[in-house]
Amino acid sequence: MSYTMHDSQNLWFRNPFGAVSTGTDVMIKFEGDNIDEVCLNIVHQDSRIENLVMDRYAKEGYINSWLFEKKINVGETEGLLFYFFKIKQGSNTFFYGNNQESLGGAGQTYDYNPKWYQITVYKKNIIPEWYKDGIIYQIFVDRFYNGNKNNKIENKKPNSFIYGSWNDRPIYVKNQSGAIERWDFYGGNLLGIIKKLMYIKSLGVNTIYLNPIFESVSSHKYDTGDYMSIDPMFGNDEIFKHLCEEAENLDIHIILDGVFSHTGADSRYFNKHGTYPELGAYQSKESPYYSWYNFSEHPNKYDCWWGFDNQPNVNELAPSYLDYIIYNENSVIKKWMSLGVFGWRLDVADELPDEFIKRLKSKIRELNDQSILLGEVWEDASNKISYGDRRKYFYGEELDGTTNYPLRELIINFLCNRIDSEMFKRRFISLKENYPPENFYSQMNIIGTHDTERILTVLNRECCDKGADLLKLAVTIQMTVPGVPLIYYGDEVGLLGEADPDNRRPYPWGFEDKDILIYYKRFTSLRKHSEVLKKGDIRFFYTHRDILAFERLYKRESIIILVNRNKSEVIKFDIGGIRGAFKNLFRNEEIHHSANGMLSMSLSPLGVDVLIKIKD
Amino acid sequence: MSYTMHDSQNLWFRNPFGAVSTGTDVMIKFEGDNIDEVCLNIVHQDSRIENLVMDRYAKEGYINSWLFEKKINVGETEGLLFYFFKIKQGSNTFFYGNNQESLGGAGQTYDYNPKWYQITVYKKNIIPEWYKDGIIYQIFVDRFYNGNKNNKIENKKPNSFIYGSWNDRPIYVKNQSGAIERWDFYGGNLLGIIKKLMYIKSLGVNTIYLNPIFESVSSHKYDTGDYMSIDPMFGNDEIFKHLCEEAENLDIHIILDGVFSHTGADSRYFNKHGTYPELGAYQSKESPYYSWYNFSEHPNKYDCWWGFDNQPNVNELAPSYLDYIIYNENSVIKKWMSLGVFGWRLDVADELPDEFIKRLKSKIRELNDQSILLGEVWEDASNKISYGDRRKYFYGEELDGTTNYPLRELIINFLCNRIDSEMFKRRFISLKENYPPENFYSQMNIIGTHDTERILTVLNRECCDKGADLLKLAVTIQMTVPGVPLIYYGDEVGLLGEADPDNRRPYPWGFEDKDILIYYKRFTSLRKHSEVLKKGDIRFFYTHRDILAFERLYKRESIIILVNRNKSEVIKFDIGGIRGAFKNLFRNEEIHHSANGMLSMSLSPLGVDVLIKIKD
Repeated sequence: MSYTMHDSQNLWFRNPFGAVSTGTDVMIKFEGDNIDEVCLNIVHQDSRIENLVMDRYAKEGYINSWLFEKKINVGETEGLLFYFFKIKQGSNTFFYGNNQESLGGAGQTYDYNPKWYQITVYKKNIIPEWYKDGIIYQIFVDRFYNGNKNNKIENKKPNSFIYGSWNDRPIYVKNQSGAIERWDFYGGNLLGIIKKLMYIKSLGVNTIYLNPIFESVSSHKYDTGDYMSIDPMFGNDEIFKHLCEEAENLDIHIILDGVFSHTGADSRYFNKHGTYPELGAYQSKESPYYSWYNFSEHPNKYDCWWGFDNQPNVNELAPSYLDYIIYNENSVIKKWMSLGVFGWRLDVADELPDEFIKRLKSKIRELNDQSILLGEVWEDASNKISYGDRRKYFYGEELDGTTNYPLRELIINFLCNRIDSEMFKRRFISLKENYPPENFYSQMNIIGTHDTERILTVLNRECCDKGADLLKLAVTIQMTVPGVPLIYYGDEVGLLGEADPDNRRPYPWGFEDKDILIYYKRFTSLRKHSEVLKKGDIRFFYTHRDILAFERLYKRESIIILVNRNKSEVIKFDIGGIRGAFKNLFRNEEIHHSANGMLSMSLSPLGVDVLIKIKD
Repeated sequence: MSYTMHDSQNLWFRNPFGAVSTGTDVMIKFEGDNIDEVCLNIVHQDSRIENLVMDRYAKEGYINSWLFEKKINVGETEGLLFYFFKIKQGSNTFFYGNNQESLGGAGQTYDYNPKWYQITVYKKNIIPEWYKDGIIYQIFVDRFYNGNKNNKIENKKPNSFIYGSWNDRPIYVKNQSGAIERWDFYGGNLLGIIKKLMYIKSLGVNTIYLNPIFESVSSHKYDTGDYMSIDPMFGNDEIFKHLCEEAENLDIHIILDGVFSHTGADSRYFNKHGTYPELGAYQSKESPYYSWYNFSEHPNKYDCWWGFDNQPNVNELAPSYLDYIIYNENSVIKKWMSLGVFGWRLDVADELPDEFIKRLKSKIRELNDQSILLGEVWEDASNKISYGDRRKYFYGEELDGTTNYPLRELIINFLCNRIDSEMFKRRFISLKENYPPENFYSQMNIIGTHDTERILTVLNRECCDKGADLLKLAVTIQMTVPGVPLIYYGDEVGLLGEADPDNRRPYPWGFEDKDILIYYKRFTSLRKHSEVLKKGDIRFFYTHRDILAFERLYKRESIIILVNRNKSEVIKFDIGGIRGAFKNLFRNEEIHHSANGMLSMSLSPLGVDVLIKIKD
């Protein structure tokens, strides 16, 4: 039984495709020879397993070949359903489950301990169009641009280092026990972003995501010192407001990094070293912030983020913390949104209780129904289990999108020959299948962030001198699949960088790789002006292991994207099941389907083609 | 035989005292009971030992008690003679040598392997008065003062760090193998020194010694990159010339650190990383500088300073190096002296061949007969052996003075109760005895430098909270003994600092300890206006183990210095052999000798008295 008996990604076997809203009927089919009975086993949200005997139909024209069907209703509760099949053949019982990654693409195999198929059941969550249709530019503020006159750096911190030159490579200055001894700064600031808004706009960007900007001692600022203040090296409330206004004039929205799982030890709230005038939780149990933290022994033993004692964890659901962040008349959320912030990217969402995220989401939508809430999640966020609990990010009341690290991994693995185009497709479609459509189209589609190696460095290492060529293929994919592309500042001009801290090098003003920049602009422009690339469905063609080929479809529009990862070979191939005439954007020629509904193509080594339908 | 038989520090036993010029007769005496014969054994410079039977005289009024005498002539060759005594008693032979540090002060004991007494024989070397009469201020330029407008730092080096705040504590940024990863800068510069000249002048200073200022990648600049250029962060030729002129207008002379035992690996000459346009010795054997260095295997194995591969050693006597540093029409020495430099402090003099120092000395005196040459030597420089050779620093043709680290050690050891005042005296007089007088009066009398812990930090640690009080005693001694006091920038305002790099903290502008500064100024002023403190002889009184008491004498002038290191006790004592009336500078009272020629005194805990003779 090595043929396909069920394929959740195939509409014939499961309809409708993928995630469904509450109350939806889903038809599930199964095919097989010499089978007596198939039971559809539904794993409900309370872990109860329901055993449903499927209806059996003989397949016309075959002997002893059967089709099994069962229609189920997913019910009114948002969450995840899972299913698998129990098969009776005479006195034997087999199981058949989800093994999408078996050889041959769609192959599933039976198994005594079958993997479950997932049905995501969601409540409708309308995500603002401006966000889904946009492109994000991520800025690590200290490293982007110093907008001060003569590059002056103001409000330098005591016991810190300023890099001697803007183009120095970042390093951590650590003591012998590995803790940071001095924080290191280049002097980028909000004024610098204001001055570079036209540049950012020229990239087709409509959303700027800023790494944390609130006052803290570090350069990364994930150790918040004061949620209510812009770090003085970066600017102040007035400059921030000005940034939001100037950005909005250019139809650019600002979203902030919300770091709510922990604060800095050197904060108004914890105040370990007494650097703030307030009475911190470390200093006294009488501190108004004492309930925010968990001390196993006051003051020196406390719960902290991944064991870093400079980042004590907070009790996100402590009423006083909720008030401070969300509910007070001048809460953190309200203050910054009133100055013009359009959304938040929640740092380490996995560490935040669902309840906290829900409350935050509810409040920001109340404050601005066009606001968005994103979350840092490294895996398939639809079924993520953290700290033993299934997370509810996409049930409708929490996150709009997450950091699409799985996509980054797929792109790199494909371009570096670790998976073929068919596996790319299956894994990509698995995300599409598991994520509610609104969330799928709201993924932050990254190929690099401040937490990963720079994409060009990865590709250079894997592929010797072809890194820049491969980067273009990566950008092509990033800009043409569903989801919101995110450009990590500097990637668009070929900035290199090993792992943190090297991935946070300053933007190389004056040393940009213009060739890469032009390529980025071509594709951001293509996307910006294409409804089909923003909103269209996606379907993949299988043509050749080295060719990634897919079509985006929206209303009557169609764009076909073709990417050849092979570095040395011209590959000839046909795409089947296509009708119409296409313009090849890069070759200034037209291409028509053949009589039997095929497009015959060839792609150069590391070649990219974009076919835009011009006639049905 | 535990009584004193010979004491080289006592004129009765040896006359004249101490070092003598060539051709001088020296009378040597020995006393003892029940002795048949004493031979004076002279160790000549060629290691030959001459055995001279001493003349024997009966001591009047004693039975079998003898005085032995021998007059020797030290000959016409400068260098060191040594001697010891061989004693015959019946059939026994004993030896008697130099054991100045035995208990009871002057005690010598006989010994089968006697230590030798030293007679330094020198050629006359006249050392410029301005230097001997002065006070030196040592400046580590990066840490003194930034004279640029708005404290701007110009010409910052690639891959370096600038401290976030002037008052940060210095640290080294090292990689895992312990090498410096990034050099660290505060931004002090020559313009800063120009702007602070009036301050320096107010300290009574007439000589500024600058740590290295030639271009190099490091903050300490002992890894010279270009002997011909001022480091661009510090200034340029013009600013340097201006500094020399402005200083001279205030009767202040500038002396430079001459680093001639090695260069930087990143230099015009070695050019390891190709940072200079010239063809360096590392890059090619065809380099004009190839003969300067010793490669055991070109280019990666080369001789370097203390194993630091960023500081390759030079062949100081390579003709091309001699020409470059000393002889060329625009040699290093000539260039900087023509811009106003009055002298050089030779870094690691022990690593330089005598021949190199002699040639340098001869040239700088030729260029300016008022110039001086000092050397970094950590021990008694009169008899220093380095790399197996007896050094010839003080024979008349090399150094004028050296870094008087032995004095620093004596002061600290006395103030921290490790030696008593009698031991201080014996060791101090040992230096006086071994050094030619001109050199003795030209010692750089230091209590701290860029290579030691800060004096206040040492005294604080040893003496808890009394560090500042003890510092005043240290300054009193430093400013009143023979030799040229050197103030390491910041010591005068109570700057703290552990070992390198902490001893190179920036001068604490705005946070000066005014009390310490006033004390410094009182004593520098006293010295500046006192011929006797500059030129006078010194004699010690023994009064109490905790009291350091000595008199400076010049012509008919006399000043008595009294220092009580005891932190809790008032000490009463008499000074014998004194006649005259004295003014007690600190108590506004007069004190007269008693009928039997004694001064009766008492000193408070940590007290200092300065008595100035007002009547014979």
